[in-house]
Amino acid sequence: MAGKIVEAVPNISEGRNTTTIKQVADAVRSVEGVRLLDVNSDRDHNRTVYTLIGELARVEEASFRLFEQSLQLINMEEQSGAHPRIGAVDVMPFVPVQGVEMEECVAAAQRLGERLAEAFELPIYLYGEAAQLPERKNLAYIRKGQYEVLKTEINLPARRPDLGPTRMHQTAGASIIGARMPLIAFNVNLNTNRKGIADQIARAVRESSGGFKNVKAMGVYLEDRDLVQVSMNLENYLSTPIYRVFNCIKEEAKHYGVSVLESEIVGLLPQQALLDVANYYLRVAQFETRQVMENHLYE
Amino acid sequence: MAGKIVEAVPNISEGRNTTTIKQVADAVRSVEGVRLLDVNSDRDHNRTVYTLIGELARVEEASFRLFEQSLQLINMEEQSGAHPRIGAVDVMPFVPVQGVEMEECVAAAQRLGERLAEAFELPIYLYGEAAQLPERKNLAYIRKGQYEVLKTEINLPARRPDLGPTRMHQTAGASIIGARMPLIAFNVNLNTNRKGIADQIARAVRESSGGFKNVKAMGVYLEDRDLVQVSMNLENYLSTPIYRVFNCIKEEAKHYGVSVLESEIVGLLPQQALLDVANYYLRVAQFETRQVMENHLYE
Repeated sequence: MAGKIVEAVPNISEGRNTTTIKQVADAVRSVEGVRLLDVNSDRDHNRTVYTLIGELARVEEASFRLFEQSLQLINMEEQSGAHPRIGAVDVMPFVPVQGVEMEECVAAAQRLGERLAEAFELPIYLYGEAAQLPERKNLAYIRKGQYEVLKTEINLPARRPDLGPTRMHQTAGASIIGARMPLIAFNVNLNTNRKGIADQIARAVRESSGGFKNVKAMGVYLEDRDLVQVSMNLENYLSTPIYRVFNCIKEEAKHYGVSVLESEIVGLLPQQALLDVANYYLRVAQFETRQVMENHLYE
Repeated sequence: MAGKIVEAVPNISEGRNTTTIKQVADAVRSVEGVRLLDVNSDRDHNRTVYTLIGELARVEEASFRLFEQSLQLINMEEQSGAHPRIGAVDVMPFVPVQGVEMEECVAAAQRLGERLAEAFELPIYLYGEAAQLPERKNLAYIRKGQYEVLKTEINLPARRPDLGPTRMHQTAGASIIGARMPLIAFNVNLNTNRKGIADQIARAVRESSGGFKNVKAMGVYLEDRDLVQVSMNLENYLSTPIYRVFNCIKEEAKHYGVSVLESEIVGLLPQQALLDVANYYLRVAQFETRQVMENHLYE
């Protein structure tokens, strides 16, 4: 019933010039039905992250206009900042939110990349789920040496763009477009101040040390509350759902003789991630997203 | 961030004439931003229930147009059907869905009632949370004797309308407007076929026999699956949340040596009702509705 809802998170290489930052925001807002949820600028990084949401086709169009405006206003020959980057629009993922498959976000990344390559002779790398080469799943790999090094290496076979010319855009460099799952920042507080326990539990649940796939975790001591926290990023709530990680932490905590005090969801997450939690604990056999009344409001 | 989202559920006294049913639906759809979620007609009852959702002011306007159209098309002097009714639009509640207080729905009921009384000299009774007399909280009390009896009793002190003239509208009779919480139809299946156990548990959780306020419940045997179900209506998910009733049923089931197999949510419910479940089981300390990405789509 509802449309195909996606998020896009373009990162541009400008975090200081407020006029530029605003003009790029206006380009996004010029597409009806697209909501600009957040504009986060960092002066030291000289970088601004926009978060937009809406129906897939509209977000795609708003993203094109964001590129168009950024390419006019940002000159990489004069740009510097603490954050690694290869172009005026450094990176932009499409993120599935509701009623849309990852494959559709991958197709959107490909389509937008082709349009930009064609319109502006901009070299495009495809990353994340949209990557065409396995090593390009990883942003850092594509960004190696940044704008300055890529300028001289772009015609090497290993660094050839996936789309567009095999030379940098004169002022805008190159861009990375892709698709990824939403990140959910999820923290669980324990009723103990023993940091070692949070570290051990973080180790138990995170992928890098044998825990759940798609989970990053670390132990943190919260000084103001004198307790410890397992601080996490859940990078795929469909294959590694919140409740499974939470239940595992509850069990591990018991093993150390402590218990879960409370948890915390930081920032935004897709509705489905919480519907899955509710339906899991209530053991709901079948549930359709359109049973949520509000989901009929953006048909 | 999001608007004040309400549902309205007008019941009109026409369930047979498809032209009328469609014209009334078109009147609702003529207000931009209002979604008509469901149109449910019953020939025997000679009654149609419309379910609409949208921003409060728009739903109020769409409701006015529904009355206007129904009053033109339905003549109570010629109407008959199995369902009790007092007028062309028999009853219409406003239901808070998101970002809106019950008091605002009560005020909307009052406002719409005044506007209708003024525009069409239509007598209006206020019911549910909007009732001005305690006995009028109850629909059945207001509807006693239906259209035919009310016509002769409307000028008795006990039956005076809350708004409008103390005489029936010549063709449209009178209407009941009010506000109520959303109903959630929630069923819990047990892994037993002993109906007596479902009956006992229904008795334990429902208000009428000492259980939770705002809960109606009964035991049901599901023949095709050879198991029993506690079938419920939860009439206030804020003061009597789904998880509390569910946990109680789980405990009661244990007492009888059986367990909860699965549950089922029938039809629509507000997003908040499920967010509350997720946050309860995850022990989320603070959560704002606007952390759900999709909720920014209908700001």
